Amino acid sequence: MIAPLDRTLEAAAQRRLDSLAKPPGALGRIEDLAIRLSLIQQSLPPRVERLSLLIFAGDHGMNDEGVSTYPSSVTGAMVATFAAGKASANAFARVVGAQVKIIDAGVSGPASPAGVINARIRAGTRNAAREPALTADEAQAALDQGAAIAAAEIADVIAIGEMGIGNTSSAALIMHRLAPAPLSECIGVGTGHNSEGLQRKRAVLDMAAQRSAATEPLEVLRQFGGLEIVMMAGAVLGAARTGRPVLVDGFIASSAALAAIRLEPNAADYCIFAHRSGEAGHQRMLETLGAEPLLDLGLRLGEGTGALLAWPLLRAACSLLSEVATLEDVLEGRL
Amino acid sequence: MIAPLDRTLEAAAQRRLDSLAKPPGALGRIEDLAIRLSLIQQSLPPRVERLSLLIFAGDHGMNDEGVSTYPSSVTGAMVATFAAGKASANAFARVVGAQVKIIDAGVSGPASPAGVINARIRAGTRNAAREPALTADEAQAALDQGAAIAAAEIADVIAIGEMGIGNTSSAALIMHRLAPAPLSECIGVGTGHNSEGLQRKRAVLDMAAQRSAATEPLEVLRQFGGLEIVMMAGAVLGAARTGRPVLVDGFIASSAALAAIRLEPNAADYCIFAHRSGEAGHQRMLETLGAEPLLDLGLRLGEGTGALLAWPLLRAACSLLSEVATLEDVLEGRL
Repeated sequence: MIAPLDRTLEAAAQRRLDSLAKPPGALGRIEDLAIRLSLIQQSLPPRVERLSLLIFAGDHGMNDEGVSTYPSSVTGAMVATFAAGKASANAFARVVGAQVKIIDAGVSGPASPAGVINARIRAGTRNAAREPALTADEAQAALDQGAAIAAAEIADVIAIGEMGIGNTSSAALIMHRLAPAPLSECIGVGTGHNSEGLQRKRAVLDMAAQRSAATEPLEVLRQFGGLEIVMMAGAVLGAARTGRPVLVDGFIASSAALAAIRLEPNAADYCIFAHRSGEAGHQRMLETLGAEPLLDLGLRLGEGTGALLAWPLLRAACSLLSEVATLEDVLEGRL
Repeated sequence: MIAPLDRTLEAAAQRRLDSLAKPPGALGRIEDLAIRLSLIQQSLPPRVERLSLLIFAGDHGMNDEGVSTYPSSVTGAMVATFAAGKASANAFARVVGAQVKIIDAGVSGPASPAGVINARIRAGTRNAAREPALTADEAQAALDQGAAIAAAEIADVIAIGEMGIGNTSSAALIMHRLAPAPLSECIGVGTGHNSEGLQRKRAVLDMAAQRSAATEPLEVLRQFGGLEIVMMAGAVLGAARTGRPVLVDGFIASSAALAAIRLEPNAADYCIFAHRSGEAGHQRMLETLGAEPLLDLGLRLGEGTGALLAWPLLRAACSLLSEVATLEDVLEGRL
């Protein structure tokens, strides 16, 4: 069970912010974030020092239909790149001082290399255009595994990111059923389709949508996958159950957060949306969730890269409440 | 003289970005930033490790007319707060790993405390609503001093921020003449006027604008001040002359950048606008400059706080070009 946010501290946090040596409200959304973190952590000041980015990786049987511009083998190759510390997410993590953990949720091909957490439920999902991506047991196992991994984390904040060739397709189907929204508004170019590729992707997702009428969140995840998305949804639940903020990356991570919130609505209080993705459906998904993301930089990579870039904003928000003098102290020379 | 940006490296930087293990363009504005930094530094990869935030402080004679909600004495009190490391800018600087230097460009009242660079031209400007804020010699001295301070910096990137009660009024007048734009569109609530206060501010700025018809950039600075703004304009020129990027904070810092660009148009190539301020005129000022800022968080504090929050984005941009594997290396297992 996820506790609804206890708002008792809100007034005190607001008073504290308003007492600082700056005009009230002058730090805009950073101040909102400071209050939000106080409430999630039930602590004034809040304290966020350690970020753990969990990158969940998985493959998609639906990729056989050509929904992506890349072959599924790229997922495993990128997992090896994360393990070697040479992907964009690794570089950004070093810049912002975050730890990266890579979880093989369901990559196809050979076992992932050393340094990757092996939580592989199966080697890629089934082809969701033609059959359910997962069995009910597989979906439940992925959800539980994600929750357990997040709950076991010692970091103050959990970020979720992903790698999975074809996963904008699963995310679009999840959004379609759980936002809900017309399928056409959920589909974007992913890694970079031309108009022909986008047309093919639309046709495949239409086929998948016609195959199953699921609208119940876990059943939607089971029907459309992927394992990395289900495991991220679990991680949202696991972090929220342990009272920690979840920094949600882009379109695909948001689809996992959406599923988690549909499973347990109180999870919404713990989700901080890092950025507005360049992927077409993301803005509408964020609106559905009533979320205003922190950054808007046209990112559409995934890997948690947007979450990493938002991390310093959370730390800055906390630093306000713990390190800045009050106006009264400043005016009376008590520094 | 500021050299126009040599764009020879642009194609190579773009090729390098497109070769990395990610879909082309998937990191959006971070990729644009990587190219921009390569060109400013004339280096591939670019290298940005050290940020120096220069906070210029000054007082405004025009504040006698009630253009701000705070008395001028708050400027000196905040300078002491910066020196003690207890302002928002200090807290944010610790989060993002930046150095802060405080420059007394023209604070009124007693001398600034130890740890503050004394570059005081005079103890506050004259009242620009009734007479020129500065003499020509004072304006030139402030400009030269700012340029010298920035040029002497050893940091890779110079950020400019400010503290000066009443300085949205000077910034509005500078924008009015140098954007140019109707005065009414340049005036906002500053530290937080109610409608009565805003009406008073408008009346005072109308008076100042009617007093002088100046449109030449240095004469505009001389007429309307303030010393911290003129010195920031100089700092932009000094950084650009030494081939370094300038990270420009909010509305007031942008008015200084605008003046610098009107003095030496090539300075524009070196300015990176950190954020869109909550102050009313900033969006139009940015449009005038053809600038799309990196962040949009409703900040309206100044002190360089927005520039500090944007700094990790510059470091992330550079990390892409220096730390991320190519797709070819990933696919061929050379990690």
